[in-house]
Amino acid sequence: MKQATREQDALARHWKRLYAPIADELAASESLLRSELTSDDPFVDGLVKHAYRLGGKRLRPALVLLAGKAAGKTSREHVVLATVLEMIHTATLVHDDVLDEASLRRHRETINARSDNEASVLVGDFLFTHSFYLASSLDTTYACRRIGHSTNIVCAGELRQINSRGNFELTEAEYLSIIDAKTAELCACCCRLGGHYAGASEAVEESLDRYGRNLGIAFQIADDMLDLVGDEASMGKSLGTDLEKQKLTLPLIRLLSESSPDERVEIRELLASKSRADRSQIALWLERGDGMEYARQTARRYADLARVEAEALPAGEARDVLVSLSELVVSRQD
Amino acid sequence: MKQATREQDALARHWKRLYAPIADELAASESLLRSELTSDDPFVDGLVKHAYRLGGKRLRPALVLLAGKAAGKTSREHVVLATVLEMIHTATLVHDDVLDEASLRRHRETINARSDNEASVLVGDFLFTHSFYLASSLDTTYACRRIGHSTNIVCAGELRQINSRGNFELTEAEYLSIIDAKTAELCACCCRLGGHYAGASEAVEESLDRYGRNLGIAFQIADDMLDLVGDEASMGKSLGTDLEKQKLTLPLIRLLSESSPDERVEIRELLASKSRADRSQIALWLERGDGMEYARQTARRYADLARVEAEALPAGEARDVLVSLSELVVSRQD
Repeated sequence: MKQATREQDALARHWKRLYAPIADELAASESLLRSELTSDDPFVDGLVKHAYRLGGKRLRPALVLLAGKAAGKTSREHVVLATVLEMIHTATLVHDDVLDEASLRRHRETINARSDNEASVLVGDFLFTHSFYLASSLDTTYACRRIGHSTNIVCAGELRQINSRGNFELTEAEYLSIIDAKTAELCACCCRLGGHYAGASEAVEESLDRYGRNLGIAFQIADDMLDLVGDEASMGKSLGTDLEKQKLTLPLIRLLSESSPDERVEIRELLASKSRADRSQIALWLERGDGMEYARQTARRYADLARVEAEALPAGEARDVLVSLSELVVSRQD
Repeated sequence: MKQATREQDALARHWKRLYAPIADELAASESLLRSELTSDDPFVDGLVKHAYRLGGKRLRPALVLLAGKAAGKTSREHVVLATVLEMIHTATLVHDDVLDEASLRRHRETINARSDNEASVLVGDFLFTHSFYLASSLDTTYACRRIGHSTNIVCAGELRQINSRGNFELTEAEYLSIIDAKTAELCACCCRLGGHYAGASEAVEESLDRYGRNLGIAFQIADDMLDLVGDEASMGKSLGTDLEKQKLTLPLIRLLSESSPDERVEIRELLASKSRADRSQIALWLERGDGMEYARQTARRYADLARVEAEALPAGEARDVLVSLSELVVSRQD
């Protein structure tokens, strides 16, 4: 939810300008999403309509449509797939919302946490299964196979991330591999499907896959930095979610790798501490080192890789938007 | 989990005899399940292997294979679909396991409840997405479409069930509609797919669908009765899960409908009570009325409808097993 809000804030300004070349197709996908996400049962209907409103900037459908338009032209299949991918993204947002023990404790007096938790799991499942149903309305199993494979990789990536909590030895390579799976894989899938259903060659499909993957990695590094910046700005009043979950992201991985053994011991103690004051000391360490700058440069490097792939596509409005997106994802924290 | 264990207990005795005609295909499905549920990451690998062991009697794969054999002959597609359906069933078991507030409270000191909760959601998602990936390895989108549609109905049914908690006005028709969606739909889907991939006519597919649906309804009524019998037997020491969740099942719906207005007020107060002693009084009310017998007869009626469909199939070992299964599902509580 927090991530979605942030993404929406950062991208809302650019929305109209950016998505202009695919405005009609996006509108068609929105109305398909609305008409698919219904139920005869009023309770179920209310829940799935609520889930529908969780989505923000519609980046995944935009990637399907832009890749399609850049590689040839879009068809009804693109609109269906754009809708499918947004449903899947929304399912993962809903499941991210499943309350953890801490949230349950905080909310116990105010909401029926148990029912909310169980309903969130089922609404996410409803979205997942409906997205597969919709994907299988296409002529062949190609999209189902690609989407099934990619979403499976996303789940494995999120599980690996859970397992990495409290692991203060996490390497940059491990971090990159996790965000490749949990975030970049679905972006790559969107772009590849967009190209495939526009009749792109295998080489262009591969290039679009790389575009989406590098864009996704850049996006996630930048998103993780925002989590730490938020913490820095509020001077420990509201801890970054990642810090609270003892989740190492790129600035911290760099900070640890550039520190002396003694400093590392001290930083790891701060990271492991349950005290907010201790953890807010991390901001000071980050200010002294080059972790944030290093992460910014790394994000920029992946964004540049994405841009190079986009620039190799045939000239056109959609191609230009893909290039602009590669700028936008790393300029968010500036 | 509890349900799985019970089913396993009740059916283990009959397993070897029952599944003999499809022993080879079931073994092939087991080994496909094993080989599909793996991950390069040891943490993810351990979790999905644990999920694999949750399954019990393999009723869903057996239905796919038996329906296929009864309608013609089974092929590689049946083995794949049997595996897909077992994965989906396991995914729903894993998501049923997502700890509610009460469980979190009980387990707080002994396990890392938060991580368990989040991991359960993601492992279930991993199984769902992998099952769709596997289903899309078949030649056409037929199975994906059917499975996507049925699993979507299952999710909506489970959501309606959550919403029915604490609703002591739930009618028999509403109850039957919920169990049709949450349990019977997937059984119907298994049988229909089994028939379809054996080249059955549309009429036989429809008949197999009805067999699975009626079997599933009979099975769920009987399963719900076991929940209350468990409570009765232990004299309130271990409350039935459904009673604890204020979930009305058929014996209670019948009890309420046969009671006088004054009695209904009293029974509803017991149902709504947070005191275990109060709720264990329900057992006494059930003993006085005909709720259990009425539920038994209703389950029997649906089992008979299933049997009639099975008996109309061509004679053979697989057909005979389908007939036996319609007996078994209602004799469990005897």
